[in-house]
Amino acid sequence: MRVLHHHPLYGASRTVRLLLAERRLVHLPKLESPWDRHEDFLTLNPAGDVPVLVTEDGDVLCGTMVIAEYLEETEGDDGRLIWGTAAERAEIRRLTDWFERKFVVEVGTPLLNERYLKRVTARGNPSSEVMRAAMSNLHIHLDYIDWLAEQGNWLAGKAISLADLSAAAHLSVTDYFGDIDWDRHPEARLWYAKIKSRPAFRDLLEDVVAGLAPSQHYANLDF
Amino acid sequence: MRVLHHHPLYGASRTVRLLLAERRLVHLPKLESPWDRHEDFLTLNPAGDVPVLVTEDGDVLCGTMVIAEYLEETEGDDGRLIWGTAAERAEIRRLTDWFERKFVVEVGTPLLNERYLKRVTARGNPSSEVMRAAMSNLHIHLDYIDWLAEQGNWLAGKAISLADLSAAAHLSVTDYFGDIDWDRHPEARLWYAKIKSRPAFRDLLEDVVAGLAPSQHYANLDF
Repeated sequence: MRVLHHHPLYGASRTVRLLLAERRLVHLPKLESPWDRHEDFLTLNPAGDVPVLVTEDGDVLCGTMVIAEYLEETEGDDGRLIWGTAAERAEIRRLTDWFERKFVVEVGTPLLNERYLKRVTARGNPSSEVMRAAMSNLHIHLDYIDWLAEQGNWLAGKAISLADLSAAAHLSVTDYFGDIDWDRHPEARLWYAKIKSRPAFRDLLEDVVAGLAPSQHYANLDF
Repeated sequence: MRVLHHHPLYGASRTVRLLLAERRLVHLPKLESPWDRHEDFLTLNPAGDVPVLVTEDGDVLCGTMVIAEYLEETEGDDGRLIWGTAAERAEIRRLTDWFERKFVVEVGTPLLNERYLKRVTARGNPSSEVMRAAMSNLHIHLDYIDWLAEQGNWLAGKAISLADLSAAAHLSVTDYFGDIDWDRHPEARLWYAKIKSRPAFRDLLEDVVAGLAPSQHYANLDF
């Protein structure tokens, strides 16, 4: 069976879990803590980052887009998540890149560092300055999701796409920490409620990380 | 004609210039300084980043991978830069992501900031601590290129691919600054000399940024 090396608090891992679940591709999850830099894992992915998907044929796929493009190419047309014309596909990839890269740099990594990694790696106290900057960036990203959600049913248009999975995956980590003020972002909230209710999302809502309880409304579908 | 919004010191812009030149797709270059955050440009790409390619049909493509996948999908099989089996394509995408993301975060952005952006935006003096960290990361990346170049003709295997263009594009900015000690990386040097001699590379070697002369060996094919 395919094996997914992942960590529940890494947004990109969650994107791939959602992608596999939406496409109904079963996998064996394997917990990896990238900050430990295990030799075995570095041999698999020299970048040392999750997610890594090892296919039944032994192909080693590193990173969200690599995994997503591979599955789109090999798993057939049913339930495509990068769909449409070349221009529509470009828009899906642009938005996915937005969350996998821009959101990660501006919000995801700083919040993960301050709220979790500094504790587990004993690298000092959270910096309130870094947190404030990340929270301010978070509102800008949520404003953008508000705007995108107003334009159509889903972020990239008429159907659900990899862009929705990526945005929801990364936000779900932030929501686990309780950092999202949903009252300020009504359109983003409606969109997130819709994606959170999908069967593919259930697995994520059951995540509990040792020593760090999720926010009260994290698993609540009526938040 | 297609228009490429780019900046000569942004590695990702250079990747796309190489990609267009390798595929012999003519374009009109349009200089964009992302740090100025022009309203017009932000309308085109809300992420505010280069490269952005506007096609003859008016499709707006933002970012290296979005542009590369679109051109691979629309420009036919001749001169493919993401080629081979699904696994080979995954390897090309993994390596491209390595340079477009990991190299940028660990080397490209810090060196660009300290060597150039702080000056043009009057945001203080270069930090020697940041420079030292970036230079130390640079050697790790060059070691990895040494190792990859030893395995085969090109970084992802038997033929030139997007991974070579991406690595060479980002390194060429670092080389413009004169930050690469080629003597320490003989295999990377051989590989870089090979790609630097290609006709597609000529345009990059003619770049001169106002107020910042390139390193002495920058345009020299026998460096």
